[in-house]
Amino acid sequence: MRDDETLEADRPRDADEADHHAAVEAVVAALDAGDADAARAVAADLHEADLADVIEQLTRGQRVAFVRALGPAMPPEALAELEESTRDEVLRLLDPAVLAEAVRELDSDDVVYLIEDLEDEDQKRVLEALDAEDRFVISQALGYPEYSAGRLMQREVVTAPPWWTVGQMIDFMRASDDLPEPFYDVIVVDPAMKPLGMIPLSRLLGARRPMTLEGVMETEFRTVRVADEQEDVARLFNKYHLVTAPVLDETGRLAGVITIDDAMAALDEETEEDMLRLAGVGDEA
Amino acid sequence: MRDDETLEADRPRDADEADHHAAVEAVVAALDAGDADAARAVAADLHEADLADVIEQLTRGQRVAFVRALGPAMPPEALAELEESTRDEVLRLLDPAVLAEAVRELDSDDVVYLIEDLEDEDQKRVLEALDAEDRFVISQALGYPEYSAGRLMQREVVTAPPWWTVGQMIDFMRASDDLPEPFYDVIVVDPAMKPLGMIPLSRLLGARRPMTLEGVMETEFRTVRVADEQEDVARLFNKYHLVTAPVLDETGRLAGVITIDDAMAALDEETEEDMLRLAGVGDEA
Repeated sequence: MRDDETLEADRPRDADEADHHAAVEAVVAALDAGDADAARAVAADLHEADLADVIEQLTRGQRVAFVRALGPAMPPEALAELEESTRDEVLRLLDPAVLAEAVRELDSDDVVYLIEDLEDEDQKRVLEALDAEDRFVISQALGYPEYSAGRLMQREVVTAPPWWTVGQMIDFMRASDDLPEPFYDVIVVDPAMKPLGMIPLSRLLGARRPMTLEGVMETEFRTVRVADEQEDVARLFNKYHLVTAPVLDETGRLAGVITIDDAMAALDEETEEDMLRLAGVGDEA
Repeated sequence: MRDDETLEADRPRDADEADHHAAVEAVVAALDAGDADAARAVAADLHEADLADVIEQLTRGQRVAFVRALGPAMPPEALAELEESTRDEVLRLLDPAVLAEAVRELDSDDVVYLIEDLEDEDQKRVLEALDAEDRFVISQALGYPEYSAGRLMQREVVTAPPWWTVGQMIDFMRASDDLPEPFYDVIVVDPAMKPLGMIPLSRLLGARRPMTLEGVMETEFRTVRVADEQEDVARLFNKYHLVTAPVLDETGRLAGVITIDDAMAALDEETEEDMLRLAGVGDEA
C-alpha cells in the first residue's frame, strides 16, 4: 500500500491538479456549511505551495471567508508562495497581529517579497510589527532597487573566522538553535566582514576536526553586488553551477547570500516575462 | 588591490564578455605562433564554463588546432559545458585515451549528457573505455527516454540505513574519499533500497552525535520516477523549493538523485525551447 501511495504522490503534474481541484471543493463545501474547523483541516493537510494554489483558485468571496476561517492557522510560508495580486489582497484581509506573527517567522528575503508591493501604509503597519533589528534589515532591503540582488538575498548567513577549526564550527552549529534552514555553505569572513572563502557543508563533513577553516575553504568563489540585476544573478548561478553566492554591499562587506532556489525562482520569473513579451502581452510589448 | 579585483570579478555579464574576447584573442595568437604551451596556459586560467564558451567562439579550424594543443590538458568538466553541436565535434577530435580518461572523472549524469547524441560507433568507443560497472550504469541511463529524469539523474548518492547514528554517519563521510561533490542530502534507505527519509546536511550538522538517522530524517519528501519528463521535474523543484529529489525505478527502488543545479539547467533549456517556439524558429513551429 505505502509503495503505491509513494509512487502516486510522485506524479509531478496530474496528481497536483487533481489534488488542487479536490482541495478547492473541500474548502468551498466547508465554507458553505459554515464549518471553519473543516476548512482549517483541509489547509493543514496541504503543502504551503499547494495551499497558495488553492487560495488563488477561490473566488474573491470564498477567499475572504477562507482567510477569515484560517485566521492564525494561516501558514506564513503559504503567504510567501502567493502570486502578487492575490498576495496583496490576502495580506489586507489578515488581522495585523496574525500578519505580524507570520512575518516574524519568515526569512528576510520572504518578508521583502511579501511586502514590497504593498501600499506605503500597509507596509508601515507590517514593519511596525517587527522588532527594531528586523525592521532595520527589511527597510534596508526595501531601499535596494526592484529586481536587484539586494532584494533577492537573505540576511541570515552562517559566517565564521578563518582560524576556527572544523570541530569548533560543527560544535557551534550543533549549539545554535536559529540556523537558517536549509543552508549549503559556511562563509569565512575577516573581522571587517569581507568574505575570504566558502565551505560547502559536504566538504566540512568530509574534513577532520582539527583542521582550520582556512585550510578547508574554497578561496575561488563568485560574489555578486547588492545592485546587480536578478536576471544576471540567475544566469551566473546557472552558468557556474553555484549553490550560494555571497552578496557584497558598496564597500565590499558581506550583506547577505543568495541561494540557488531563489536564483531558480528569479530565472523562472524572468523567462515567464520574456515569453509574455514575445507573445505580445507583456508590459513592454 | 585585492578588493578591487574581487569587485571587478563580480560583474556578472560585462566582465564575462570582455574576458571571453580577450581569451579568444590570446588563444588565436598562441595558435598562430604555433605555441601550444601558451594556448594551454590560457585554458588553465579559465573556469571550465568559460573555456567552453571560448571553444564555441573559435572558427572550426581554430577549434581543431586548440583541441589538439590542449590534448590531455582538456578539463573533462569543460566538455560537459559545451553546447551540443560543438560538443560532438570536439569529442570526435579528442584522442580516445584522453576521452576515456575524461569520462572516468565525470559524474554519471555528465557522461550521459556528453555522449547521448554521439553516433553509435563513437558512443561505443567511449563506453568501452569505462570499467564494467560504470559502463553498466551509463548504458542503463542511455536506455531511458530522452529528456527523462532517468537521463538527468546522477547515480552517485550518499545513502545510509535508518539505525546509523549521526556520529557514525559523519565518521563514514570523513573516512570516504569518493563522496559526490557537492551533495546536499543523505538519503536513508531500507535494505531493498527504498527511500525512507532524507536528511539535509545542515540538519545533520545541527544534530547530536548519538541520535539515530531515523530520529533526524525528514519523512515527508517528494520523489520522481525515471520516466518522468525533465520539464515536470524542473517545475516540481521550483514549486516546492527542492534541492535533491530521489529518483525511483519502476519497482520503487532508489535509482539515483536529481539535484537542483541539474533541475535549473533543465528549466533553462526548456524555457529557451519554448521561447524559440514562440518566436517561430523552434523545431515544432
